[in-house]
Amino acid sequence: MSEEKENIQFELTDELIESVELLIEEQNDKELRKFLSDFHYADVAEILDELNLDEAIYVIKLLDSETTSDILMELDEDNREKVLDQLSSKEIAEEVEELDTDDAADIIAELSEERQLEVISQIEDEEHKAEIRELLAYDEDTAGGLMAKELVKVYETWTVAGCLRRIRGQAKDVKRVHSIYVVDKQDKLIGRLSLKDLIVAKSDQKIADIYIKSVDYVTVDEDAEEVARVMQKYDLEAIPVIDENQTLLGRITIDDIVDVIREEADKDYQMAAGISQDVDSDDSIWKLTKARLPWLLIGVFGGIGAASIISGFSEAMLKFPELLLFIPLIQATAGNVGVQSSAIVVQGLANDTIDGNIVKRLFKEFGLGLVNGLAIACVALVISHFGFGTTYHVSITIGVALISVIVMAALIGTFIPIVLDKRGIDPAVATGPFITTSNDVFGILIYFLIAKLILGF
Amino acid sequence: MSEEKENIQFELTDELIESVELLIEEQNDKELRKFLSDFHYADVAEILDELNLDEAIYVIKLLDSETTSDILMELDEDNREKVLDQLSSKEIAEEVEELDTDDAADIIAELSEERQLEVISQIEDEEHKAEIRELLAYDEDTAGGLMAKELVKVYETWTVAGCLRRIRGQAKDVKRVHSIYVVDKQDKLIGRLSLKDLIVAKSDQKIADIYIKSVDYVTVDEDAEEVARVMQKYDLEAIPVIDENQTLLGRITIDDIVDVIREEADKDYQMAAGISQDVDSDDSIWKLTKARLPWLLIGVFGGIGAASIISGFSEAMLKFPELLLFIPLIQATAGNVGVQSSAIVVQGLANDTIDGNIVKRLFKEFGLGLVNGLAIACVALVISHFGFGTTYHVSITIGVALISVIVMAALIGTFIPIVLDKRGIDPAVATGPFITTSNDVFGILIYFLIAKLILGF
Repeated sequence: MSEEKENIQFELTDELIESVELLIEEQNDKELRKFLSDFHYADVAEILDELNLDEAIYVIKLLDSETTSDILMELDEDNREKVLDQLSSKEIAEEVEELDTDDAADIIAELSEERQLEVISQIEDEEHKAEIRELLAYDEDTAGGLMAKELVKVYETWTVAGCLRRIRGQAKDVKRVHSIYVVDKQDKLIGRLSLKDLIVAKSDQKIADIYIKSVDYVTVDEDAEEVARVMQKYDLEAIPVIDENQTLLGRITIDDIVDVIREEADKDYQMAAGISQDVDSDDSIWKLTKARLPWLLIGVFGGIGAASIISGFSEAMLKFPELLLFIPLIQATAGNVGVQSSAIVVQGLANDTIDGNIVKRLFKEFGLGLVNGLAIACVALVISHFGFGTTYHVSITIGVALISVIVMAALIGTFIPIVLDKRGIDPAVATGPFITTSNDVFGILIYFLIAKLILGF
Repeated sequence: MSEEKENIQFELTDELIESVELLIEEQNDKELRKFLSDFHYADVAEILDELNLDEAIYVIKLLDSETTSDILMELDEDNREKVLDQLSSKEIAEEVEELDTDDAADIIAELSEERQLEVISQIEDEEHKAEIRELLAYDEDTAGGLMAKELVKVYETWTVAGCLRRIRGQAKDVKRVHSIYVVDKQDKLIGRLSLKDLIVAKSDQKIADIYIKSVDYVTVDEDAEEVARVMQKYDLEAIPVIDENQTLLGRITIDDIVDVIREEADKDYQMAAGISQDVDSDDSIWKLTKARLPWLLIGVFGGIGAASIISGFSEAMLKFPELLLFIPLIQATAGNVGVQSSAIVVQGLANDTIDGNIVKRLFKEFGLGLVNGLAIACVALVISHFGFGTTYHVSITIGVALISVIVMAALIGTFIPIVLDKRGIDPAVATGPFITTSNDVFGILIYFLIAKLILGF
């Protein structure tokens, strides 16, 4: 057994890709099928992502739809779109027949409306078709958009033996049985059971006597992020979804939630870095530019704002030209502090560890700003005076300005995300370039105002 | 059934906390026990996180260790440390007896070495004790550090009926049976089975005839992040852990991986924001300062570097004072581009979507920098000329400098994380203040060099 091929050791090498390309070129279908059958479908998807479109289509058409449907789900989204474009509605319908309802609905949702109807009409299994139609009606960012219709459901009136016999049938359609959901005659969710409970129970016991009455659930219109939060908090591997009448509609499994968590984290991270669309490093220059340029323009307008402020203090420039040397210092510090404060707030909001008291939080940031500001100001004061020979007055100006700028940046960085969140706007937009830019401009303004106050120009 | 209390509706209100505090003050143990028994342990942990230490200890000592062990695991790490400080070694040992081996080892690992020995010596269950000792020996960032010893294991020689009978015993210790692992006589992992397979099989079949030979696994010294990547890629809910001889040692479940993914994402996010320790908004000002101040100091030294560069070009300041107005623009743009580029690379490295070809990637960033640079330069050129009345030469200087600075920032932002990653250093350190600061300084230097070239001062 020890020589068997293990997925974990899979490595995408140039040689591997070349072997596949050669087999495609030779149209050596038998060898190609044999070669690819050694790999997990997620690995085959990685290989296809490296091939050109014609080669990928060749492989998709070669393998049977049971395999290719799983491969399709794992392909890079852009590549999947291209592949689907090359398949007929009939071919897509065949792939969709093999998929669980949640994946099937996700794939169909990526098609144009016209093609969606064509594909659905070609699905032969009427039950599957109806279930996919139902799922397509839900918003993708809700529990309904995440759930699958495949689940194992038993009635409270059944016996353990009858139950085991019957779920053998249901379980064939369900890849993994997480929980068995117990319903009453009206299909209302009333509890749950694990396969383990069923195995451990005596065969003549009634389900009504052994099922667990406390069951977590979400309603079908619950926000996807909230579902993720609940499943994480309670360490759930699956959660049933019900409608407003408590009727059991479907279930959400943890693997889909892992994707939600990842996407959410990736989105927040990109937002903080000033990237507004979900892009990755393999995307085209055009797509990357669309995601990056708008944020750079925000920075440009901030820079222009800063230029206006500086030119408004031109007398100061003549009298105290050394003040200008420290503009980059003020600006960098304001930006850094703002990003730190906003990141902590945004993360706290995402992890639900921030309570409502905004005044208390601002007070704390104020204290934190003072502590950091004093430390930074001392360093800058000493360096400017001894390193650059600035007068005491100018050095003190720089120190006082740094403390004020740090306190202000901390307050702005804390305040804005909380306010956005309260108004239902994603607070993550207020990280990165947005907060840096506003703090840059305010920081420079404060710097010159304090200089004016202390130096009196 | 419809009126039963559901976890999902839990909300931490001030009234709720006050009720608990009142019951503690009154020492109304019976009511308090009854009140708290309505909540999931994760919710009780949230309540305890809001109480003061004495109150929390009161509740911990009141409830039985089966409940409190789970509550302890869910407490905020800082609070758990304080609570554990107040418990005797005997009391901690009692909590630990109730926990799965992975959680038990995690709790013990948080204690001082001396207390670890005391607590372990007080554990009564000898097998549990030995398993915890084994787990404590593994590095926490490896598969060994994540795994639990609880699993269901069957020998290939057993029959389905015998197997079901025997795993009833094993399964009692295992909260959730994900997979049943099949081993040979030497306890070497040779395959897997699901409970479903077992139920669907005939009772006189041999395990050897029905088990699935392809099984994913990780070795005990595998990196935790790699385990997370594999489990996500292959949609696994549990993965067995083996040693170098293929002997089955334990298993890792997806809920622990969800935590790894979250922590990893949080860490990268904080690093990008210039926060070097795992902190959250509830931490003390002192802890937050320790996490934030070092990065601000990097910014200060960058600012001082920028000041030196500017003072080195003092002739230019006299001849073309308007150049100084646009220092913030140059600096902001350099910083923003650097953060964007590094974020994309760091995320690509984390998601394993970046292949090795560094030259190709730099070429792409070069192209991207040119496109973005041209767009930004045009905007800045027009605004500086018409808005600030700079001469054509100065406006062109600003435009050319912006293009050069953007290209440079994109290249540095891409190059540094890749190089760090190749050298085994976490590339996430090269995001945020680090990359912003270096790009600020280089940006300003390039700006003046280009000005010198074009304006010839």
